[in-house]
This record gives sequence, C-alpha cells and structure tokens, in this order.
Amino acid sequence: MFNSFGHLYRVTTWGESHGPALGCVVDGCPPGIPLTEADIQPWLDARRPGQSRFTTQRQEPDAVEILSGTFEGRTTGAPISLLIRNTDQRSKDYSEIAQKFRPGHADITYHLKYGLRDYRGGGRSSARETAARVAAGGVARAVLGRLAPAVRIRGALVRIGAYPIDRAAWDWDEVPRNPFWSPDAGAAETWTGYLDGLRKSGNSVGAVVELVAECVPSGLGAPIYAKLDSDLAMALMTINAVKGVEIGAGMAAAELTGTENADEILMGNDGRPRFSSNHAGGILGGISTGQDVVARFAVKPTSSILTPRRTITVTGEEIEIVTKGRHDPCVGIRAVPVGEAMMACVILDHLLLHRGQVGDAGGRIG
Amino acid sequence: MFNSFGHLYRVTTWGESHGPALGCVVDGCPPGIPLTEADIQPWLDARRPGQSRFTTQRQEPDAVEILSGTFEGRTTGAPISLLIRNTDQRSKDYSEIAQKFRPGHADITYHLKYGLRDYRGGGRSSARETAARVAAGGVARAVLGRLAPAVRIRGALVRIGAYPIDRAAWDWDEVPRNPFWSPDAGAAETWTGYLDGLRKSGNSVGAVVELVAECVPSGLGAPIYAKLDSDLAMALMTINAVKGVEIGAGMAAAELTGTENADEILMGNDGRPRFSSNHAGGILGGISTGQDVVARFAVKPTSSILTPRRTITVTGEEIEIVTKGRHDPCVGIRAVPVGEAMMACVILDHLLLHRGQVGDAGGRIG
Amino acid sequence: MFNSFGHLYRVTTWGESHGPALGCVVDGCPPGIPLTEADIQPWLDARRPGQSRFTTQRQEPDAVEILSGTFEGRTTGAPISLLIRNTDQRSKDYSEIAQKFRPGHADITYHLKYGLRDYRGGGRSSARETAARVAAGGVARAVLGRLAPAVRIRGALVRIGAYPIDRAAWDWDEVPRNPFWSPDAGAAETWTGYLDGLRKSGNSVGAVVELVAECVPSGLGAPIYAKLDSDLAMALMTINAVKGVEIGAGMAAAELTGTENADEILMGNDGRPRFSSNHAGGILGGISTGQDVVARFAVKPTSSILTPRRTITVTGEEIEIVTKGRHDPCVGIRAVPVGEAMMACVILDHLLLHRGQVGDAGGRIG
Amino acid sequence: MFNSFGHLYRVTTWGESHGPALGCVVDGCPPGIPLTEADIQPWLDARRPGQSRFTTQRQEPDAVEILSGTFEGRTTGAPISLLIRNTDQRSKDYSEIAQKFRPGHADITYHLKYGLRDYRGGGRSSARETAARVAAGGVARAVLGRLAPAVRIRGALVRIGAYPIDRAAWDWDEVPRNPFWSPDAGAAETWTGYLDGLRKSGNSVGAVVELVAECVPSGLGAPIYAKLDSDLAMALMTINAVKGVEIGAGMAAAELTGTENADEILMGNDGRPRFSSNHAGGILGGISTGQDVVARFAVKPTSSILTPRRTITVTGEEIEIVTKGRHDPCVGIRAVPVGEAMMACVILDHLLLHRGQVGDAGGRIG
Repeated sequence: MFNSFGHLYRVTTWGESHGPALGCVVDGCPPGIPLTEADIQPWLDARRPGQSRFTTQRQEPDAVEILSGTFEGRTTGAPISLLIRNTDQRSKDYSEIAQKFRPGHADITYHLKYGLRDYRGGGRSSARETAARVAAGGVARAVLGRLAPAVRIRGALVRIGAYPIDRAAWDWDEVPRNPFWSPDAGAAETWTGYLDGLRKSGNSVGAVVELVAECVPSGLGAPIYAKLDSDLAMALMTINAVKGVEIGAGMAAAELTGTENADEILMGNDGRPRFSSNHAGGILGGISTGQDVVARFAVKPTSSILTPRRTITVTGEEIEIVTKGRHDPCVGIRAVPVGEAMMACVILDHLLLHRGQVGDAGGRIG
Repeated sequence: MFNSFGHLYRVTTWGESHGPALGCVVDGCPPGIPLTEADIQPWLDARRPGQSRFTTQRQEPDAVEILSGTFEGRTTGAPISLLIRNTDQRSKDYSEIAQKFRPGHADITYHLKYGLRDYRGGGRSSARETAARVAAGGVARAVLGRLAPAVRIRGALVRIGAYPIDRAAWDWDEVPRNPFWSPDAGAAETWTGYLDGLRKSGNSVGAVVELVAECVPSGLGAPIYAKLDSDLAMALMTINAVKGVEIGAGMAAAELTGTENADEILMGNDGRPRFSSNHAGGILGGISTGQDVVARFAVKPTSSILTPRRTITVTGEEIEIVTKGRHDPCVGIRAVPVGEAMMACVILDHLLLHRGQVGDAGGRIG
Repeated sequence: MFNSFGHLYRVTTWGESHGPALGCVVDGCPPGIPLTEADIQPWLDARRPGQSRFTTQRQEPDAVEILSGTFEGRTTGAPISLLIRNTDQRSKDYSEIAQKFRPGHADITYHLKYGLRDYRGGGRSSARETAARVAAGGVARAVLGRLAPAVRIRGALVRIGAYPIDRAAWDWDEVPRNPFWSPDAGAAETWTGYLDGLRKSGNSVGAVVELVAECVPSGLGAPIYAKLDSDLAMALMTINAVKGVEIGAGMAAAELTGTENADEILMGNDGRPRFSSNHAGGILGGISTGQDVVARFAVKPTSSILTPRRTITVTGEEIEIVTKGRHDPCVGIRAVPVGEAMMACVILDHLLLHRGQVGDAGGRIG
Repeated sequence: MFNSFGHLYRVTTWGESHGPALGCVVDGCPPGIPLTEADIQPWLDARRPGQSRFTTQRQEPDAVEILSGTFEGRTTGAPISLLIRNTDQRSKDYSEIAQKFRPGHADITYHLKYGLRDYRGGGRSSARETAARVAAGGVARAVLGRLAPAVRIRGALVRIGAYPIDRAAWDWDEVPRNPFWSPDAGAAETWTGYLDGLRKSGNSVGAVVELVAECVPSGLGAPIYAKLDSDLAMALMTINAVKGVEIGAGMAAAELTGTENADEILMGNDGRPRFSSNHAGGILGGISTGQDVVARFAVKPTSSILTPRRTITVTGEEIEIVTKGRHDPCVGIRAVPVGEAMMACVILDHLLLHRGQVGDAGGRIG
C-alpha cells in the first residue's frame, strides 16, 4: 500500500534517484486502448529538467520503455510495466551528505524511520520519482482519450513567491510559450528577473500550481471516503514538497459568506445544468458536477540552497551545511506536468469506479 | 472502498441523516485496550449540535453504543461496531426539496450519479455522518492513550470569514471557554457579534480549523503514497464542506524563499533533534519529525441560506429556492472535533503501520 | 482489512456470538436496486439453526434490519448497514471454558494472538458470524437479479463423513425436501440414520458442500491475483471450519491426464461456445467461461463433542475436557446457504469489477 | 488490485511470456535486511525449467536484477523492483494459435473478457509469470531469516496422477535428489517410468504439491477475512493450473468424526503447547497454533498435449487442434518452488500485520 495509489486504475511506483532505473506498474488499465511509448514520451519530455536555466541542470533523456501489458500497439488489460533508466547519476563524493541531515529534506526522517537511507541524490525522496507518475499519467490520458475524449487536463503556474499571475490575463496559449507554464505573459516576465536573482544568490522560492480538468463527466467520485476531491487532495499531497491543496475556492472559501459561495444552478443551452460560478471547483459532495474541476497546490521552496544553515550529524553534532548541487530555484515549475498526471490518473480511476458501481443507472435532468 | 478510510486501523461509516441510526465499524484495533462507551461519549458530546446559538438547533443525544469488539471493558482485536441512533428527524414535508437541487449541496450530484437520492436532511451527505468519525476517533484516542500516551491532539478555530485570530494571543485554555473553539478570546468576541448578524440575516460564513498533534513519535508515515501528510489531506478533505487542506506553512509556503522556509535542525536537551521553526508542520518527506504535526482545513459556508438563489428542478425548470431549516451559520465550528478525530485515526493508523513494517529497526541520533 | 472481503462490492462483518447483535456493512452496492428486509430474510431463515434435530437447538429469529443505504425501497449507492440481534444467548457459567482451551477451537489461538478472548459461545469465531455473510449474500442476489437475472446460485451437501451422494441421482428439486440440502434422496436417508447415531453418542462429522452458479457471464475474474477462482477459494476458506476448497475437478485434477482433463470446445446452438465437459469448473485462467461455475468445500466436524479430550488450561495444566452445549453434529449442513452467499458476493463483485475495467470492450465469437 | 497480493508485504507482478521481461514490485519490505541478487537467484534457479527431461525444454537463465529498494546490500524500506529478462522467446509462427482457442487454456477467456490477447506463449497466463512470485518469495525468505529465523518453508510433490507417495517413506533429504521434489525415493522411481511414457505419447498429468512451514510463531493470521488459511488458499489458487487447495486434513476432513479430528492439546517440554496430531494444519480459527503449517494444492495436467482435441476458432468454426511446443508433461513439478514462495510471502505478510496490530500484547500459557 505504501507505494501505490488509485483504486481500480492503480499505479505502483519504484526507484531511487541514483539507482539504475525507476518506473511504475499501471494496473487496471482497460483493454484495447492504443498505446505505445510515443503516447507517453511527450509528457515525460515536458517534465524533463534542464530545459531552461530555471530548473535543475541534470540532463536525462527520461526515455520510457513499455515492458508489458500491450500487444500489437494496444493495451491488453494486463499490468503495464514502465521503465525509465537513470543516466545522469554523477559519481560524486556523498560522504558528507551521508553524515549530515539537510534541513527541509527527508534525510532525517528516513534515518529516524528506517535506520538507514540511500543518500545519493535524495534516494526515493528525489523529485525523480515524479517521472514515474508522469508516465502513468500518460497512460491515463491515452485511456481517457478513448473513454472520455472531451476531457482536457491542463496545468499552469499561478504564483511564484510574492508574485501571483493576473487572472484577467489568463491565456492557455501562453502556457507553452514561457519556461514557467505561466498563463500570463506579464507574470512570466516578472518571474524571469526574480528567479535570475534568486538563482544567483543560491536561494529558492515556492510556487502555486493550478490544474483544470474540462469536460469531466458529472457523477464521478463517491461520497465520503472516495470523494473526487479527497482523492485529488491525497494524490497532489503525495507529490514531494507539496504543503497545501485546494479545490475550487480553496482556503479562501473560509472568507466567503454563503450568499457569495453558492454557485447558482441554471439550465444550459445543451440541456445540461450550468452554474453561475464555480466556487465548488466542479465538485459537490465529493462528486463531479460537470463543471471544470479546479485544484491548486502549493510547492515549498527547494530546501537545497547555498545559504549556510544549521543542522546536525548522525552522531548528534551541531554543524552548518551548504547544499551544493544541480538544484531547481523553483521546483514548483516542474510540478506542473506532475500535477496534471496525478489529476489524469484520479479522474480515470473514478471514471472506471463509477462505471463499475453505477453503470448506466445515473440520473438525468429534464 | 467507498466508505472506508485507513490502512490497518480502518474505519467504515454508514448511515443517513434521517434513517434510524448511523455508525461505523472500526477494524484493526489493537487488543487489550480499555474501552467503554464512556471513553467515546465525551468526544461526541463535544461535537453535538445545539450547544450554542451558533450551531444548528437540531437536538440529539448522540448516545453511542458499542455492539461488538470489546469484552469485559477491553478491546479484543475484533471489529468494533458503534451505533448512534437518530432521534430528532423531524417529520416534515420534503416534497419541495425532492424536486429541487439546493445550490452548493450534493443534491444535484447525487441525482446525476445515482439516479435517486435520499433527500431527507441531506441523506448521506449530511454533517451527521461526522458523528461516526468522532466515535471512531474516540476509539483511536483510547488506543493512543495506551500505545503513545504522550500524544495530544487538539483543534481550534483560527478564522471565521474575514476575521482571523491573533496568533500572538493563542491560549489553548481559552478554547473550551467559548462556543467557537477559539484560542483567542478577542476573536471569540468579534465572532459573536459577526455571527449574530449573519444568523439574523439567514446568511452563513466559512472558517478555518487548525489541528495540532503534539509528541507524535518521529518516523510515522511512509514516503510517497502513504505519506502522513497525504493521508491527513485525504482524511480532512473527506469531511463534508472542506475545500482546502494545509500542512505546516501550507499554501503560504509558496510565498517563502528557501532561506526562510528551511527549519534548521539543532540538538535538544533531551538528546533528540529540535528545530528552529516548524514550517514543515512536523512532516518531512511524508514522515513525522517529532515536532508538532500541524494541519489546517478550510470549511466553506453552509449552503443552506435564507437568501433566494436560482436553481433548477429535476425536470430542468429554472426556479428560485430558499433553504429553510435548522442550519449552522458557520458549520466550521462543529468541524473542530471532527478534524481532531480524523487526525487521531490517521496518526494511530500510521503508528500501527510503522510498527508492522519497521518494528524497532528505526534509527537514532547520537 | 481484517474483517472485510470483496473489492468493489465490499462486505465488512462484525459481532460476536453473545454480544447484543451482529451485522455487516455492504459497500459498493449499485444504486436503484429494489431492496427491503423481505429480500434478505428468506436467506437468513434458510440458514437459521434449530430447524431440524441435525443442527444446533439454539433458537433465534435472526431478523435482519436495514439501517442505511436504501430509500423508498431501493438502494441509493450508499453503504447498507444490516443488523441482526442476538436473542438466545443463554446465561450460563462460562468460568470453566474461560480457563480451558477446547481442542479444535480457536480458543487457544485467540488467547495466544490477542492475550484475551470473548469466550462466551466462541465470540467472534462462532458460526453465528455467518449470519452476516448470508445477509450480505441476500443483497448480492438482489443486485444480481437486476444486473444478471439469469444467474442462479445453488448449493447442496454432497458428502457426510464416509457417505457421498450418488451423483447419478442428483435432483435439485430434492434439495429443499430434506434437512440436509441433499440432492440425492437416498443419501438423505442414509445420513438420517448415521447422524442420529452420531448425535446420540455426542460425536460429530465433516461434510462437503458443492456450489453451482449457472449462467454466469463469461469474462468475470481477472488473471493472476484477482482470479474468480482464487477469490472464491479465499471467500470459502474464510468460513469457519472449512479445510479445503476445490474448483471443478478440484483435487482430483491431480489424477487426470491432459487428454481426460481438457474440456473440448464446440459451438452451441445459441451461437456461443459450449464445452464437452466441465473439469474446469467454469473458469479458465481465472476467468469465467460461461459454463457453470462449480466449487466445493470441506467442512471439518464440529470440535464440540461429548467425548473427553485432553487439553490444557491457561496456566498450562494438562486436563480433560468435555464440551457440552447446543452443538451441530454436522455443522457442514448449515454451511450450504453460507457458501451460496459467499459465491453470490464474489460473482457480483467480479461483475462490477469487469464492468469497471472493461465495460463493453469484451470479445465475441463468430 | 488485479495483479497484486498481500496486505502489508505486497507484491505486484507484471510481464508476459514473450515480452522483453517480467518482474515484480515488492512493497512493504522491512528496512535493514541484507539483500542482494544472490539471496534471490537460488530460488529462481530451483524453479527454472529445462533441468530435467520432465519439464519444458525452454532454456532461460532467469537472472534477477534488483532495480530499487536496496542500498549497500540492505533493504531501505522502499519498494524493491525485480526484473527478469525473457531470453528464449523463440520466434515462431503464431498465426494458427492466434485464431484458435486451445482447450483448457485461458485463450478463450482472455478473448471473451478483453477482446484481444497476447497469444505468444500464453502471454500473461504463461507459467513464466511464476518466476516473479519466486523472486518475491526469495525476498520474503530473506526477511523471515532475520525476523523469524527458525521458520523453515519447504515443499514436496506428493502425487502424480494415480501415484501418491508413501508417507511412511517421507524423507526431506530425498527431495533435492530427484527431479520431482519427491520425499519418497520409491515414488520418484515410479514417476520416472510413468512420465517417460506420458511424455512420449504427448500426454500430460496432474499432481499434488504439499507445503510445510515449520516453526511459524503462534498468533499469525486474523479471524474471519484475513485468516492465515484463507490467505494461503487465495495465494495458492492464484498459481495457474491450480484447482484445489487444502489445509491440514483438507478435503478429507469431511470424512472424519469430531473424535478423530480434534487435535488434543498437551504441554511441551519447552513450556509451549504441543498437539497430539495436526489435522488442523497448524491453523485454528484462521490463526497459527505454533504447529507446522501444512497446505496442499492440486495442479491440473498441462493442457498442451499432442492428442488432437476439438475446439473452435475466433470466427466460431469447429476444428481440431494439436498443441505442439516445449511443454511440461507434469507442470505440477515446477509448482513446488512456486508454492513455497507464495507461502513465504503469506507468512511474512501476517508476521508484519500481527506486529502492526498486536505488537507484544499476545497471550502466554503458564
């Protein structure tokens, strides 16, 4: 249970930053879905570091191999094993890091929990683990493309540090044009200067990612403990460095009155309900309404910084540490495709669960 | 899977607002723990509505019965079935609500998903479901009291609408003295006037609950998909009306730099690590550090308000609706003991999981 | 996980023999299925003891109450809580049994595992637990009646001790006519005399139950670890006192050659495959073929017998014990409806799982 | 869920007979356990085909690679990914088998369920899948070697076709000396002649495997739905071609009287209970007693035989088929190490589960 998520569409990831490879097993995939490496690779390419000066300079092709579960280019219903080799594990001297706990890292908790840790590059707690998620998300997108082709899942960076985007300037077409996944060209410009400064000073900063899933069928999610939103919250919080998750209005819902918050219900021209607003983030009672499903998550600043910080050693000695290495000044940037992948997996999982429990017994309006 | 949570300490809840009863089955409870109704009832009493004019006036004793799993006042390791009878389901005319969807409620999504719904009092989506959680949390506290007696789990309301507490004035002793679970007497006074006004106008407002677990052993939680924080996020997001979950610095982590965010590590006088700050909320890499575990969640305003809102009927007719009834002007108030209960269940679950996988193999410092 | 079974259609049972009640929570039930107590009670009535001199004389109405999950006589998709009160827990002196371990009973293992046990009537290990299974099976049958109405699940007793039935004499109509669920009137007569003798001498005997599910759709079950047969084996082996489970030819498959065992495939008049024989028991590669699904299980003799047996006390003293009480001379008889119930739950679970993963993507012939 | 088994020690397998590789992910492994490929390879070598003329002549080194989860030769608590390359997938013309369903094979059910199938070498339903189980079992044995070093898990073949072993001649030392894992040298001789005849005539035959786990601590297994025996039954029934599973006296328990069946309890010289016999197979009420845990399973004859059998094509044409290829005359022989591996996984899983739920709270005698 520790390294798997999902109910019917179930993903198990494995692998450390500096081992020979990492990967995942995708179980519960529907059969007959066209799937080759070419369906998955583009999502990995989008996540890949080293594509701008604002992400770690680690260079890896992150080429995915499908080892099982497809035949003649289609899924068979059997488990899909995906493998990504690690190719840029620089040999270096880890003796210092082996004895010291980097503040803000999982070093100390892995040590306390397990009594030993793979300290090379963060081991299992490395951001590299997210490559396996993105691969699993690529499979989920391929399936959604067949079962619910209208569904569109996209993410964007909406805040870096003190600088949020201007929502009035939101333009999805802008997202792939800048190295930040910013939907606001102006924010991207601001962030460029800000991050250049941070990078030079060896500092880092947090960010907020927003995910939007359009055309999600209504009725997905189960009340109470398999809510679409609680499964999303779980899925997003499992991404390393995430400290907060919001659905729709999110934490700001606390500041609204009932009059402000209630999304009024109207009839759309297509004979389906439409809503005057979307404070709910497309989910009511844990179940999708048919509106856009909107989630956000906050990524903390990379803990690996050049400023000396106080810490302790395995033997309990108080020392100072400077974490050198090829680090992201804003790891939140690379979290955008990871968040999209998690959302794709969760939505597909609930599509299959709903089909299993309810089939065609859902209700209609009118 | 739909109505259960937890891995080893696993809780399954059932029951609707206006059915004969509600309850839960608590599975995986360690044997030999002293447990009678008297260990659980106080937590239900704390959650019970109708104790001030700021919560729904529904009056129910919420008396819990233990139907199984104990013998001569101790748990046996067998599943514990807890039953709470519904006693104040007023007979009333539900014909209107049966045909109309209340904005912000699960009415429309239950209809779309299942094709029918128990519209009496919200059915399964009623806040009454949380009584079962509080009962399960009471059992978890009893177990923690034996296995990790230093653990202390408390919650407080830290914001109502535009009015946050003053953190400098935080006083745990103040919490039980006001009807809001406010740790800040000044905020409680502000809220009193504010909520009286809202209540009279038939409006409602959101709130933020903060949970703090002290003396949680280090090493709880598993990296990646059974993180202590992702399980907390899931657990809290399953509470009806919750729209956001934060761990430690939460969404605000996005606004911090690495220098600000990194909690420096020092040695405490007790020979265990201590930290210069707790932006991490007591969790690094999904695993508890030994610091206070801190989580927050935002509860949206009650959707049942007296202001007319536009909605539609089952037949697709656009109409207006006014939701009368005995509703909470700020349902977030009653969420405090619910959040505490969920946190107790999650922490106990991870205590047992850790004992199962790791036993005594954890690491030490020094 | 300890007290639940099933994947999507998931049943959690609770309760001890001499507690106030026992019951189960049925989760994952499809919505819109007509369901009242009257759909479940007949199956409980069939299981009820005391209906002949060949089963325990404990008399309980075993009246089931639906506490949640239905509305206006139909399932809502919410968890269904079923409650059965214990009414015939005779007060008696358990002091002896509290200190002694009955051979063949779970007394000693519960003690060793948990450090304490509810010794009244066997506590959780009592055959009474199976009432909850039968109730859950009744719900499963109601759902199957809607989703796959052709499915017919029946059980029969095919052996008591040294006396098997004559398969040539198999007549399903005979089953309800005798107190043994025997499909062979001749065997029933033999058993009557045999069991009368055993009963008088305070002895007991084992039995074999055979279950047949007709018209199960092809394609149910998943290869490898959620095989229809492995889930059936698990489900039947969870029934107390079961020591062996067989599918189709079962253990006797070991004695067959490939030539004898291979069920040849032909085309039926209905355009679907038919088979020359059914050594496979309707399952190939873990997936239903469309033939009858055939399973058998062996129930050991009741351990509670009047013959003195050597045992030990909690303090380690070697003594003799005679287990008095109202016991079944052949507890296998009452296992027939329990086995049917488990089979109904497993088949429904796989029907829902298949619908979830595969939908309409299955293959056709011709 | 479809391709995983186990609760805390959880194994997910993947891979087809003729894909590039197969493998598994082992999750929940305790940390700090010495583990390299050398700990796993011997068990794979024992399972490897082509070691005598009585198993398929497919030749594969079955070399296992550990891709994750260990560091400096010890487990870290992270998921262990094990990879085994397929190296002897002969290129051949599969066009015939692609259109025809081999009787007794999963061809027809995979087609009916999924609408397509990987027909090369049986795809996922190939016996090659069991290599992944044996690898996972090797890890389980390494863990047991640390946590419960006295535990010893061994298997033997106790019947081929009409020829059972002579139990009076049981000698564990004989098992590795003959190509059948027979504990009885006489039976091995009989089987040699019998199988040579079968092999020449292109026929096959079934077999029974017996597994014995010695020195299993008492208290493992949970009553009702996570019984040690129901988990064993599930685990063994998931092995391809298994049609029956027995615990202790097994199906023969049906023929015993209570007087015969009850294993009397005495005190051993070591201050722990001992039993006059072991009809229970070391398990009472789903929980281990401390006696040997004894399980058996029947493996049907290989369906691939040279005798022409009637079958149908995908288009529904009735034809005859002869299944050529490198097949096992008695696939049950190779099932011995597979059964041992499954038993090791199940016992370890329950050891960890017990430690999680109960810790040191178990009972003592005396």
